[in-house]
This record gives sequence, structure tokens and C-alpha cells, in this order.
Amino acid sequence: MSKYQHIKQSAYEANMKLPKLGLVLFTFGNVSAADRELGVFAIKPSGVPYEDLSPEKMVIVDFDGKTIEGDLRPSSDTLTHAVLYKHWDHINGIVHTHSTYATAWAQTQRDIPIFGTTHADHITVDVPCAPPMSDEMIAGDYEYQTGFQIMDCFKEKGLSYEEVEMVLVGNHAPFTWGKTADKAVYNSAVLETVAQMAYLTEQINPQAPRLKDALIKKHFERKHGPNSYYGQ
Amino acid sequence: MSKYQHIKQSAYEANMKLPKLGLVLFTFGNVSAADRELGVFAIKPSGVPYEDLSPEKMVIVDFDGKTIEGDLRPSSDTLTHAVLYKHWDHINGIVHTHSTYATAWAQTQRDIPIFGTTHADHITVDVPCAPPMSDEMIAGDYEYQTGFQIMDCFKEKGLSYEEVEMVLVGNHAPFTWGKTADKAVYNSAVLETVAQMAYLTEQINPQAPRLKDALIKKHFERKHGPNSYYGQ
Amino acid sequence: MSKYQHIKQSAYEANMKLPKLGLVLFTFGNVSAADRELGVFAIKPSGVPYEDLSPEKMVIVDFDGKTIEGDLRPSSDTLTHAVLYKHWDHINGIVHTHSTYATAWAQTQRDIPIFGTTHADHITVDVPCAPPMSDEMIAGDYEYQTGFQIMDCFKEKGLSYEEVEMVLVGNHAPFTWGKTADKAVYNSAVLETVAQMAYLTEQINPQAPRLKDALIKKHFERKHGPNSYYGQ
Amino acid sequence: MSKYQHIKQSAYEANMKLPKLGLVLFTFGNVSAADRELGVFAIKPSGVPYEDLSPEKMVIVDFDGKTIEGDLRPSSDTLTHAVLYKHWDHINGIVHTHSTYATAWAQTQRDIPIFGTTHADHITVDVPCAPPMSDEMIAGDYEYQTGFQIMDCFKEKGLSYEEVEMVLVGNHAPFTWGKTADKAVYNSAVLETVAQMAYLTEQINPQAPRLKDALIKKHFERKHGPNSYYGQ
Repeated sequence: MSKYQHIKQSAYEANMKLPKLGLVLFTFGNVSAADRELGVFAIKPSGVPYEDLSPEKMVIVDFDGKTIEGDLRPSSDTLTHAVLYKHWDHINGIVHTHSTYATAWAQTQRDIPIFGTTHADHITVDVPCAPPMSDEMIAGDYEYQTGFQIMDCFKEKGLSYEEVEMVLVGNHAPFTWGKTADKAVYNSAVLETVAQMAYLTEQINPQAPRLKDALIKKHFERKHGPNSYYGQ
Repeated sequence: MSKYQHIKQSAYEANMKLPKLGLVLFTFGNVSAADRELGVFAIKPSGVPYEDLSPEKMVIVDFDGKTIEGDLRPSSDTLTHAVLYKHWDHINGIVHTHSTYATAWAQTQRDIPIFGTTHADHITVDVPCAPPMSDEMIAGDYEYQTGFQIMDCFKEKGLSYEEVEMVLVGNHAPFTWGKTADKAVYNSAVLETVAQMAYLTEQINPQAPRLKDALIKKHFERKHGPNSYYGQ
Repeated sequence: MSKYQHIKQSAYEANMKLPKLGLVLFTFGNVSAADRELGVFAIKPSGVPYEDLSPEKMVIVDFDGKTIEGDLRPSSDTLTHAVLYKHWDHINGIVHTHSTYATAWAQTQRDIPIFGTTHADHITVDVPCAPPMSDEMIAGDYEYQTGFQIMDCFKEKGLSYEEVEMVLVGNHAPFTWGKTADKAVYNSAVLETVAQMAYLTEQINPQAPRLKDALIKKHFERKHGPNSYYGQ
Repeated sequence: MSKYQHIKQSAYEANMKLPKLGLVLFTFGNVSAADRELGVFAIKPSGVPYEDLSPEKMVIVDFDGKTIEGDLRPSSDTLTHAVLYKHWDHINGIVHTHSTYATAWAQTQRDIPIFGTTHADHITVDVPCAPPMSDEMIAGDYEYQTGFQIMDCFKEKGLSYEEVEMVLVGNHAPFTWGKTADKAVYNSAVLETVAQMAYLTEQINPQAPRLKDALIKKHFERKHGPNSYYGQ
């Protein structure tokens, strides 16, 4: 048995959740699961339908994007995953989807405003939207540059990837991450819901106010930090 | 067997209806069922996925919010339930969800206008939206204060909790209640549908008129009061 | 066996299609099936959940609204069905729902404009919206008057109930009918789809033009009349 | 066994995917599969519900629209399929649906703007919308003329049917095609998703910019052409 079996299994199970959660059409998404000690991650093979996946088909790749094990070609977004794993030490799962509402916001190149507690239960700021990259970067190593595009956005906005586990890539679609592949998938579903609610909120009331700071703080601290009291 | 078995069973079954009715993502919702003679209610444990629930996992809490029986921590919204049970004598079930359309309206801080008979079949007024609470209240005992926020809204608007079994908490999400936990769940689904229809109505015709009084009265009395003739 | 068994069976099967087609929440809808020779129709009992229905529970009512057979109270909308059967000789099935998009249009008190061939495949005019009835009519025999409200709308607009098998009742919701209960259910699903498409069309292009006459005529005649060539 | 069994089977399987993908209500859609050597295609019979289909019920038609084999009448849109097969040598599958969002765009008579990479992964231009045909053409051989309406639109816009495998027919609904019937069905689902995302994008930001050329080129070439690297 492969010494990577555990992350192949994790990546497989997390990938299979995407169609169940209604986050992907056909093969428009991928999940990876990393093992920091081994310095690799398991990722979905490119263009393979979810119904044909198995743990064995996951591809093992190192943090420079080099395939270590597997007969299939890894996801075309593999280099973006690799860059994020290499630079962000505390994440072990990454998800990319083209989920409908989050992608629509990405296409508008707008951050998703924080309008309510559903949003604040997860992050304390607007969901950041990274601007489209320059033509030079696009013509270069595109998926590799997408990773830097995301990190640059976080640097410019002064965000921590450990506190904000999601981003919209302008004109493209969302990426989410987390301590595990499962948590990254959870974040993708939360983002899609928050994106739909924010869309509806602006349709109903174009002057809807942002959530006030006291509520942002309260809801986030219910679920995170030393005084959290949500869950078991 | 626990002497609270009957409300644990009711609360369990009512909780399980939320995902079936499409009203919750992950654990974003909770139902409680009260026994007035015993002075307690059974409520969903915090953060436990619906697929892992069982009647035994429900937590028994008294109307001051003190846990009476159960190994798990009760829902983080438990104090809101407790306050409402303590002050509103005739309700035996409460539901909280983050259902999409109702939550979007809550985020706009607007009441949902009464536009048609689907709405009037259930309540005769706009669905009230309680304003966000003051920063002092938020910093205090938040979930406890949420109960008062709801009751204050009903007092200011002159509403009866027995006639209007639903509210939007501004910037947050809906609460509904009823004579039973099942009725409270029913009200959550009705509210979500009414919220979606009102959203669409305003999109199609921003000048859509409120339902006229004669129709409000007629439809409500078809289903409620001494001359009602709906149902068996 | 009841001599009304055949229409009880038809009404039962047609009612059961409403939840499958996503046209009803809880008990918000009803279908009836008539036998013209016997001068009666079978209709859903009031307020009974779809999962508890059976052919035996259907109620037999005559065209004056008098219950002829059945232990349960018939739908609260029974008198509307009775009036339409009594005055419109060539229909044998009627459906009432609160389907989301059609109800939203009814709440706006607007006809649904004919924007495309999906609409013209079924009717050649805008879907008519009957204005809300006068306060006197509402205070009187409401469901009985709803039947006349529908017929008055058709008279004023010069429409034939045999060519236009659907109507929106202003501030309320849709009714549809047809040669059979199954056809009436089919019309309810078509109306919901046409209502959603028209809503989206106006959102995308508020100046979207009505379908031109040549296309209306062509598409309707593909499916209806002596030269139709759709179907077997 | 019929010598057309292979395309009957392909057409049957491709047709059955339409309801699974949520692209059709009742019988509002059809798929055909062609065999270039035999000079014929298999197509859905007209007005037959999907649940009653079988490979044997597919109708074999030549590229002039003449029925070659089969007891049932072919789809009313058969002549449109025939015209496209006759003039566009490299397609072997065609799909017509009235899917909700694509049809709404067709009803607005607008091209669908290219707003993001989901769109650019498949085509490099706006989804073309052919203008409604002249009254003379409508009164003539309508379905035959619909084929020319589509081809004329491609000529005027300078598009290649091999690069752009989808079109909206103004006031009507979409057609898609491809090297196989399966690919044509895939294109119908992609078009519906792209149509929904573009609708949402304009609702969220009416000034949303078109995707820039460098990104269009990059995403399309990831999936198409000699340097593509998507899939296995």
C-alpha cells in the first residue's frame, strides 16, 4: 500500500463531497489534502468525472508541483495548490470550485460585503476578491501565478490566511482552504451560501448597511478563539 | 428511561425536518420542544451534524437556561429559547435557522411586506424585523439579550406572539415558534417561502401594493379563529 | 366500490404530482377531476398532507358545491372549482397551487407578458391576471366569488377558457384547468416555468420586446389546431 | 437488429441525460446522434415523455429530413437538426432545450457577455443570439429556416461552428452541438450555467467588465488546441 494512502483517502472523500453539496458541474472543481511531514499533497486527477474517482486515482504532488506518484495527470490547478501549501504553513487542505454565486461575485470583481451573522460566524471581513493578474503574469506560468495573486491580495489587504480561509480570484472563481481538506470543503459551501445571501440582500435593499463591528466581533468569537462556546 | 423522553423525541424529529425542508446548511439551525409542567425544554446539542443526531443526544434545559440532563453542550442559542419560553407562556416549540431568503431579509433590516394570501393565510401583518441590539447588549449576555430584543420588538409594534409566530432578528436570521415544535418548523418553512415570494414580487414590480385589509382578514379567518373552515 | 372510483383515482394521482413537480409546500394546492355525466367532481380533502392521501380520501362534490360522498371536508377552494365546472362545460380538471414564481406575478397584479416560444407553445396571449375582487365580494361567499372573478376577467379580456387554460388571481395565486386533471397539472407546471422565464427576461433586459405575432401564431399552431404536428 | 442501433443507443442515452441535468421540463427538448457514413441521424420522437423512451423508439432521419426508419413521428425540430448536419460536416450530435436561464437570455435577444473563465474555458466569444427570423421565413418552412437562421448568424458574426458549439435563437431557446451527442449535451449544461452566472453578474454589478483578452486566450488554450493541458 502506498505510504500516501491516508491523504489519497482524505482527498478522495473531500472531492466526493463537492457534487453532493451542489458546488460543481461536471469536473469544475478539485480538492487536495496535504501531509506536511512528507511534504506532499494528494489532488484530483484532471478532467476525471466524480463518479469515476477512487482513492487510487488521486495524484501525489510535492510543494513545487512535481508529481511524485500516480498514473494520471493532476488537476490543471495543481500549481496554485502547490504555491499556497509552500508559503502558508498551517493549511492542509485546499478547494477550488466554480460554484454559481461565488463565481458570479468573482466575475464582478467585488469583495462580498459582510451583511450578517452567517458571514461573521466565519470571517470578520468582506470576502476578498483578488484583482485579475497582469497580462504578463497570465502569459507566464498561469496557475503558479494564481497562487501569488492570492497571496499578494492578502498582503495588500493585511489579511491572515489563518483567519480568512477563502478568496475570490477576480473574473475566475473561488479558492478556500483550511486545517483539513474537510474544513476547506466546508468553507466552500459556507462561501457559496454567504455569496447568495449577499446577492439577495443587495437586491432587496441596495442601501443595506454592513454589519456593525460589535456584532462581527461577537459572532466570530462565539465560534473562534479562547472564549468560543459553539460546538462540543 | 428519561422522564424527558417525549420532548427529546419531539425535538429530535423536529430537528430532522430542517435539512429535509432545505432550511439549513450543515448545523446552522436548531429546534427545541418544551414541557410546561416539567418546566424544561429539549434542544439540539451545539454543532452536531444532523446525520449524527439521535433523541438521546438532545439536551434538557430549564427556562433559566440551566442544563438539567445531557452529556453534550446545548445549542449556542439556548438562552434565547429559554427567555422566550419563560416569558411567553403558550409556546412549546421554537426554531432558529439561517434559511436563505428569510436571512437575506433580516440582513436588510426590513419587515417583509404582506403582498398576498400565502402570507395572510398565516399572519395579518408584515413579518416584523427586530432592529440590531445596542453594542452594550451585544457585549453582555448576547443570546439572553436576543430573547429580549425579540420581545421588545413585539411590544413596540403591539404584536401578539400567539398571532404572529415568526420574527427576523436584524442582521442575523429568523426565529419562529408555535404550540408544538412541529408547528414551529412549519412556520419556518412558511416564512422562507413568503420571504422568497416577497423578494420576487418587489423585483417584478417595485411599486407592488400591499394586500388590502379585506383580503388579509378573509384569508386569515379561513384558517384561524371560531369561523375557520380550513383543514379537518 | 364507489361509482365515483375512477375520478377519485384520477384526482388522487393528479394531486400526487404537485409535490413531485415542486409546485406545492405542505398542503398549499389542490386538484379536482370531474365526471360530466354524473355531474360531480372528486377533490382533495382540506389540509391533509400529500403523504397521507389515498384515492378513498378524495371528496365527491356536485357542481353547486354540495358534498355527495366522503367523510372528510373538501378543499377550502371547492366552491371555486364548482363554479368553474358549472359554467365552463368543456373542462374536466382544475388545479390551484401557490407555486413560487406564478404567485409572485399574481402578487404584482400584472399579466405575464408573452416573451418567447415556451409561452407561445401553450397560449397566444399574456397570462391574464384577474384584479383583486371588491371588498363586498370578499366579505360574501369568497371562494364562490373567486370563480366569478376568474370568469369576469376572461369576459373583459375576450378570452376563451378553452384556448387559455390558466389565470392568475390578483394578490392570491394561479388556477389552471384542462380537458383532464392531468392536463390541468401539466398547465400548472408550464405556467410556473413561463413565470420564472418572464421574471428573468425582465431582469436581464427591462426593455425586452413581446414576441412578435408571426412567431406566436406559428408556435401555437405547431401544437394546436388542424395543422398541428407536435406529438404522436 | 437495425443497422442504426448504435446511433439509436447514443441518441437514447444522450436524451436521458437532459432531465437528469435539470435541462428540460416534460418533453421540452431533444437530442440527435448522427452517423456520417450512413448519412442519417437518430432523434427523439415528438412529444414522448422521457420516462417512456427506449433506444427502439428513436427515429432515423436523413440529412434532408426524410424519415428512414421508425414507427413514431420524429421531433418537431427535426428539420433544424437536418439542416445543421447537412451544412456543418464535423458535428455528430445536436441538442435543443428550453433550459431556464439560457431561454431567458434568448428571450431578451441579447448575446451572453463573456464575464469569466467558466465561459472562456469553452468559448472565446459572447454566446451569440440569432435575431428572430422574418415573418416570411416563419410562415414558410419554419424549422428548416431555423437552421439557416443559425448559420446566417454565424456567418454574419464570423464565427466557426467548430469553435463555438452553442447558439441562442432569439425569442426561442438554445441549440448546442458537438463531435458527439454526449458533447452536445455537455455543452447544453455548460451554457445553462454560464447563462445563470452572467445573469447574476449583471445583477450584482451592472458595470461588470468583459473578461480581458489575455484571460480569454489563456483559459481557452488550457482546454483546447495543441498546447492544452486539461484532462487526461
